[in-house]
Amino acid sequence: MPHTPLNIALIGFGTVGTGVARILAEQDDQLRIRAGRKLHLCRVVVRDLSKTREYLPAGVQISDRLEDVLGDESIDLAVQLIGGTDVAFDYAGRLLRSGKDLVTANKALIYAHSRELFEIASEHRRTICFEAAVAGGIPVISAIMTALSGNRITAIEGILNGTSNFILTQMLSENQSYEQSLREAQKLGYAEADPTLDVDGTDAAQKLAILTRLAFATDVPIDQMVCKGINDLMLSDLEAAASLGYRIRLMAMAKLNNGRLEASVQPALVPSDRALAQTIGADNIVTITGSTVGRLRLAGAGAGQLPTASAVVADVVDLAAGRAVHTFEAVLRLRSQQPVGILPQEQPEHRFFLRCLVDDRPHVLADVTDILGRHGISISSLVQKESRTSNVQSESARLIIMTHCVSEGCMRAADAELGALDCVQGDCLRLPVAD
Amino acid sequence: MPHTPLNIALIGFGTVGTGVARILAEQDDQLRIRAGRKLHLCRVVVRDLSKTREYLPAGVQISDRLEDVLGDESIDLAVQLIGGTDVAFDYAGRLLRSGKDLVTANKALIYAHSRELFEIASEHRRTICFEAAVAGGIPVISAIMTALSGNRITAIEGILNGTSNFILTQMLSENQSYEQSLREAQKLGYAEADPTLDVDGTDAAQKLAILTRLAFATDVPIDQMVCKGINDLMLSDLEAAASLGYRIRLMAMAKLNNGRLEASVQPALVPSDRALAQTIGADNIVTITGSTVGRLRLAGAGAGQLPTASAVVADVVDLAAGRAVHTFEAVLRLRSQQPVGILPQEQPEHRFFLRCLVDDRPHVLADVTDILGRHGISISSLVQKESRTSNVQSESARLIIMTHCVSEGCMRAADAELGALDCVQGDCLRLPVAD
Repeated sequence: MPHTPLNIALIGFGTVGTGVARILAEQDDQLRIRAGRKLHLCRVVVRDLSKTREYLPAGVQISDRLEDVLGDESIDLAVQLIGGTDVAFDYAGRLLRSGKDLVTANKALIYAHSRELFEIASEHRRTICFEAAVAGGIPVISAIMTALSGNRITAIEGILNGTSNFILTQMLSENQSYEQSLREAQKLGYAEADPTLDVDGTDAAQKLAILTRLAFATDVPIDQMVCKGINDLMLSDLEAAASLGYRIRLMAMAKLNNGRLEASVQPALVPSDRALAQTIGADNIVTITGSTVGRLRLAGAGAGQLPTASAVVADVVDLAAGRAVHTFEAVLRLRSQQPVGILPQEQPEHRFFLRCLVDDRPHVLADVTDILGRHGISISSLVQKESRTSNVQSESARLIIMTHCVSEGCMRAADAELGALDCVQGDCLRLPVAD
Repeated sequence: MPHTPLNIALIGFGTVGTGVARILAEQDDQLRIRAGRKLHLCRVVVRDLSKTREYLPAGVQISDRLEDVLGDESIDLAVQLIGGTDVAFDYAGRLLRSGKDLVTANKALIYAHSRELFEIASEHRRTICFEAAVAGGIPVISAIMTALSGNRITAIEGILNGTSNFILTQMLSENQSYEQSLREAQKLGYAEADPTLDVDGTDAAQKLAILTRLAFATDVPIDQMVCKGINDLMLSDLEAAASLGYRIRLMAMAKLNNGRLEASVQPALVPSDRALAQTIGADNIVTITGSTVGRLRLAGAGAGQLPTASAVVADVVDLAAGRAVHTFEAVLRLRSQQPVGILPQEQPEHRFFLRCLVDDRPHVLADVTDILGRHGISISSLVQKESRTSNVQSESARLIIMTHCVSEGCMRAADAELGALDCVQGDCLRLPVAD
């Protein structure tokens, strides 16, 4: 058991950084028992020294120069908690090269630059930990890399973006529009001023890509997966799904399908009695299916100051105790594993929920169903409702169609034809059903 | 990265042992990547060499003498998968003393003898892993010892016995008596020929005690916790609870209550929409509440050949990779942590579900409610139904009482007086409501 303290520098002292500093200070005794040595926060690097801070740990040197950490040989570990990819990548590389291990919660950084960073770490015999980058306080990376070692993982699916999930549950429970719920999420700190990456699926897709690398040794760039967000969902869609016994959730999914990897992030219909459907607010849930364990479900807070800090501190303790170096070696060894081929996006088959806004006039239904029929799409149920888009006498109708099982490719082709019909207003909404 | 193989002996080759051997053989390549070295199953020790086996790994030496493993210096690790505590303790001690690390799935062994075993391991610088001893394939020990390092854990609650949960869900869904569902569980291999330890709460209590040691550094012997089983539940109790919006689950719970530890295993009423209530069949679920992560929920298969083997193999890989030694050092250091005092069993307050079978004659209700009133027990709802115990004209009635919040002590005192009433038939059933 190493008796020397582990000397830590925090790079970035925002919400999560402050949480980490608090935990290190307040749980000093317990952390020493868990880690076998003292965890000593020595330095904090901030962008703006003049900013007033709610909490400043005692006896810690604060500066606005990364060089102060790079040049301090006593620092063992840099906990890098800054966003973005450019500066973060530059910093991370320099920290590793100067001999610091690295803990980060930055999923965009790991998604975009893990290959280069892992290479640098490997060269300099350093360790990188990134549990907090995916699903906040839920130890999903640890589950894949350690607890499920004795499994061939066949599927990972879940809710990886708390902002979207908050908005989806808020819309339905509070009878709000997408815009109203988004504003509520921003007010409560669940969504950023520019929420694009959360609501367009990018954030969840980056997290999913990180997990697929670990579970399947396979890179799935976002542009090679179906990646859709929640920003074109209307309250009436959520209500229509609910009346059919489903909730709409932004599902992230990667699974083996005939030996190839199917990966997607998209809103999907989930039966209301499923744990996925019952995951509400900003919570996350991940179900991992393994060849021996069956289905393992992990759920909890996917974001927020303390849950994210919880995962960061777990990584710090793993490093301090001497475990993380071995886990990271296994992560590096994954590079020698044969990756799985990626399934073309058109092939996966699902039942689909299709919503079309159409002109309320004769022969429209015949036109729509003719297109579906010609693409081999069999209708399981169809409901036509007056649209709510206008308060005056409705000139448009809303079609809600549930299909039988059909490929994404057929649906796309039909969708394109539907969109070209004069009687169809705007784009149709096409959501898979997660049975 | 150590390049020498890890040489393994399996002690016990029953259901789980066979599963472990299969995984080691079938996932050889992946395990090598995860562990950084080959996992080499060298020896198997069985009780009866003449028994026919469904599976025997090639190239493995089988014997019925533990001494063959003790005397083989090339063996690094003994995976001990035998039941009971006496022989298992004797074997475990000898294996550790002969220089083998130890992986076990035997919760009764860890519950009864961890103190002595940890001492022997510490003396001989050996490591003990026991993830599979609690909740089968669900990595709950790993969560407590590693993923939640940055948390003061305040509560652990869940379903830790798959047999009981199978019986409870089977009774209600199939409209069966306790005895019918137990026989069904035995037929499907979910219950042993002698199911006592599963259905009387002992199995779950042993598991809970193991978790409380890790999470709170506190020993709670079973005789110091409320420990009740499901064996006195009737289908009508489950139905009555369901009609009130609850499911009955065998809840294991340990939580801090005003700085002291409240621990119990008992059937409890859980609101039907909770994840606990929706955990059906032989599944387990554990919710851990931590000071920083909030509520983390883990759910999956709590028993069975492959899920248990999944946890065993995870431990083997942890040992082979070099992580387990550090985690076990942290387990040993817990002995220096100040334990939490145990809350007297009478103090916890709950709402209660009370079922009494009473004679169907005048003044009975007055007698019963008088006793409750005198013990300060306020009634929230009361239903009287004809009892189903007889097909002829009923001479008894069934009272279902929901109380407001009251201490276990008051309920016990009232219960004793109720039991002494002439008009009350047998023991009343008293279940807390887990709100």
